[in-house]
Amino acid sequence: MSGAIEVIATKRDGGELSDDQVRWVLEAYVRGEVAPEQMSALLMAIVWRGLSPAELSAWTSAMVASGTRMDLSGTGRPVVDKHSSGGVGDKVSLVVAPLVAALGVAVPKLSGRGLGHTGGTLDKLESIPGWRADLSTAQFLGQLRSVGAVIASAGADLAPADKQLYALRDVTATVPSIPLIASSIMSKKIAGGADAVLLDVKVGAGAFMPDLDSARLLAQTMVGLGRDAGVRTVCLLTSMEAPLGRAIGNALEVAEAVEVLSGGGPADLREVCLAVATEMLALGGLPQDPGPALADGRALEVWRRMVDAQGGDPGAALPSAPLVEVVEAPRSGHLVRLDALAVGTAAWRLGAGRARKEDSVDPAAGVVLGASLGERVEAGQPLLTLHASSRERIADGRAALDGSYDISDEPQPLAPLVLEKVG
Amino acid sequence: MSGAIEVIATKRDGGELSDDQVRWVLEAYVRGEVAPEQMSALLMAIVWRGLSPAELSAWTSAMVASGTRMDLSGTGRPVVDKHSSGGVGDKVSLVVAPLVAALGVAVPKLSGRGLGHTGGTLDKLESIPGWRADLSTAQFLGQLRSVGAVIASAGADLAPADKQLYALRDVTATVPSIPLIASSIMSKKIAGGADAVLLDVKVGAGAFMPDLDSARLLAQTMVGLGRDAGVRTVCLLTSMEAPLGRAIGNALEVAEAVEVLSGGGPADLREVCLAVATEMLALGGLPQDPGPALADGRALEVWRRMVDAQGGDPGAALPSAPLVEVVEAPRSGHLVRLDALAVGTAAWRLGAGRARKEDSVDPAAGVVLGASLGERVEAGQPLLTLHASSRERIADGRAALDGSYDISDEPQPLAPLVLEKVG
Repeated sequence: MSGAIEVIATKRDGGELSDDQVRWVLEAYVRGEVAPEQMSALLMAIVWRGLSPAELSAWTSAMVASGTRMDLSGTGRPVVDKHSSGGVGDKVSLVVAPLVAALGVAVPKLSGRGLGHTGGTLDKLESIPGWRADLSTAQFLGQLRSVGAVIASAGADLAPADKQLYALRDVTATVPSIPLIASSIMSKKIAGGADAVLLDVKVGAGAFMPDLDSARLLAQTMVGLGRDAGVRTVCLLTSMEAPLGRAIGNALEVAEAVEVLSGGGPADLREVCLAVATEMLALGGLPQDPGPALADGRALEVWRRMVDAQGGDPGAALPSAPLVEVVEAPRSGHLVRLDALAVGTAAWRLGAGRARKEDSVDPAAGVVLGASLGERVEAGQPLLTLHASSRERIADGRAALDGSYDISDEPQPLAPLVLEKVG
Repeated sequence: MSGAIEVIATKRDGGELSDDQVRWVLEAYVRGEVAPEQMSALLMAIVWRGLSPAELSAWTSAMVASGTRMDLSGTGRPVVDKHSSGGVGDKVSLVVAPLVAALGVAVPKLSGRGLGHTGGTLDKLESIPGWRADLSTAQFLGQLRSVGAVIASAGADLAPADKQLYALRDVTATVPSIPLIASSIMSKKIAGGADAVLLDVKVGAGAFMPDLDSARLLAQTMVGLGRDAGVRTVCLLTSMEAPLGRAIGNALEVAEAVEVLSGGGPADLREVCLAVATEMLALGGLPQDPGPALADGRALEVWRRMVDAQGGDPGAALPSAPLVEVVEAPRSGHLVRLDALAVGTAAWRLGAGRARKEDSVDPAAGVVLGASLGERVEAGQPLLTLHASSRERIADGRAALDGSYDISDEPQPLAPLVLEKVG
């Protein structure tokens, strides 16, 4: 108790904590010896004062050490994990996991569920009839060996200190801190046991990191933590001003991911998937162009095996919404702005996302774009199509889309999607 | 719960809370609807970002409103309260309460117990055989009318939010914040019901406020809060580099206070008592020189009635320690430094103070100075006399005094005791 006061006071006054202090305070918190009110005061002091690289490294190690680190050494191939900071329409993991597995790199992705306006990868996959996210460790390792790709829910023993801390940060307004965000993400990735990690940090109005400077700092911080833990880590910064692809919503996004895996799909989504897959293949020591594996069906074949291995039927029809409403383009011109946050919020209100952890999601709900950013639209063509289960939700979703786009006479140059690479 | 997150986030980001938000968060915390971990995160954000004058005023009002404000309107004389931020050897309240009461101003002082190296006024008075700190409201008001001076323990209904908050601040390292300190002190003084308040903020090595700038800011903040609440407030900043007077320890300080009340006592202690009493008389609308009431026995008479009214025997012998050890001056010269913090810590270790709220204090323990700061001493004369109940405590006290003073060939000019007046 008095040890905790000293730790909090040191951080409050801008001092540096020793490795022992960092390890002690996290362990004692998990054991219940440091009270939640003490940890939350420390967290706010960290939001204020930050963590030095040495403190952050010790903090992250202690989070990893609070649970078990997965042993993936028997996989028989290079093992590369992937994490995205979350964006609107971000179904990249669904594409790249089978894609790079088809090319020899194993992908062991432990994932969470979505909260708020960005969807969760597990929620998307659960729209496939029969598919289940919960695997035993033996099932997980078996599928990684046999299929080469697994996306499953993280077990309770993966950095449990992070789970406890995150719940506390959530109710004490101590989420927005780059070192705390970096250690939360990287402790789970390090505990996940991969040889290397590709991080995709989204930047822009629809992302957790609104500006490039913060996103770059987060990326550098995570890459440093990977290095400290002996996990090769590369981070791409990718744009999230407009939604990625044209489908936003769980089943809608799975269908679009399958389009990309079949060699088609929207150009922006393809571009990000190929950039991520290229980095993952390089990290796995098998550098090559992943494009052909989309065109020739190898990636799609791994996708089918991956879905099947987790109880899903890759050929089954995906759920569809009873109500569909079209918002037409009010004029002709070029679609020069389409606000990712507004579209994400609309999809959430339509039922695709959850406000609280306990909520369930509507697998069929969401938004489909009639045009991608930069394209020409004609007055009266479908611009946004809303999918939901009730009139109320349609109305809520529509309200969120008010003022979400601009159509201009003049085309505007498209900004690049992949902004920077760190690490 | 989500209201609390918004309040914390606003303060975290440097924004200003509305009156309603401030009132709500304090009320909801007292009701148990805002969790301790949320309040401690908010407190750390306040340590970081501060509180604007409007926020602080609302915060203090809400603390006052969490309990009952005393109604002293039936006292029949001007009512002036007094508060000291706490210093080593600070027995000023014991002198000024009866002194200004003898001159027509009523003093209703609700007090706490000491913690750490500065003693508590109630602990000092409790060294008088029979004296009791706990009075009912009726007894408190009756004594205020009949004697004109009461020093008693604060009831549970005096700004209970402050009590709850203070306990939380204590374990979460969120004590050092000028607005939080100011609101804690002033909420209790405002709830105490006096027309006016004289504050004595100690400045220096032995005080809570080590430097003049912080002390001045605290003083200005408290004077502003008094004004906002309609309570005339004046603050003296007084020096606490050396102990005040020559006695440090409960019964030892009572004896010294009685010396001053009898017209004698050390010059430094007399000077501060007269300065404080002069301000209290002015605040009560009865400006006059308090000196004669010490010389002619009127103050001592009120002291006796005050002690007697609370069950104490003003004529009884005070407890004395079984062990007394003298530290002699190692050389002749001028006592140019005597460290208040070291002497206070020595008295504490000798048994005069408590480390935890549950501890009891030794009424007889303490330190008596053989010379005041600036005086000439001769080699071998008693410089510090230690009073305690055991050899161990004497040894502990002696160790705390190592290096606590300097004796120099050259006299040094004495710094003033009363540094500034605010308000």
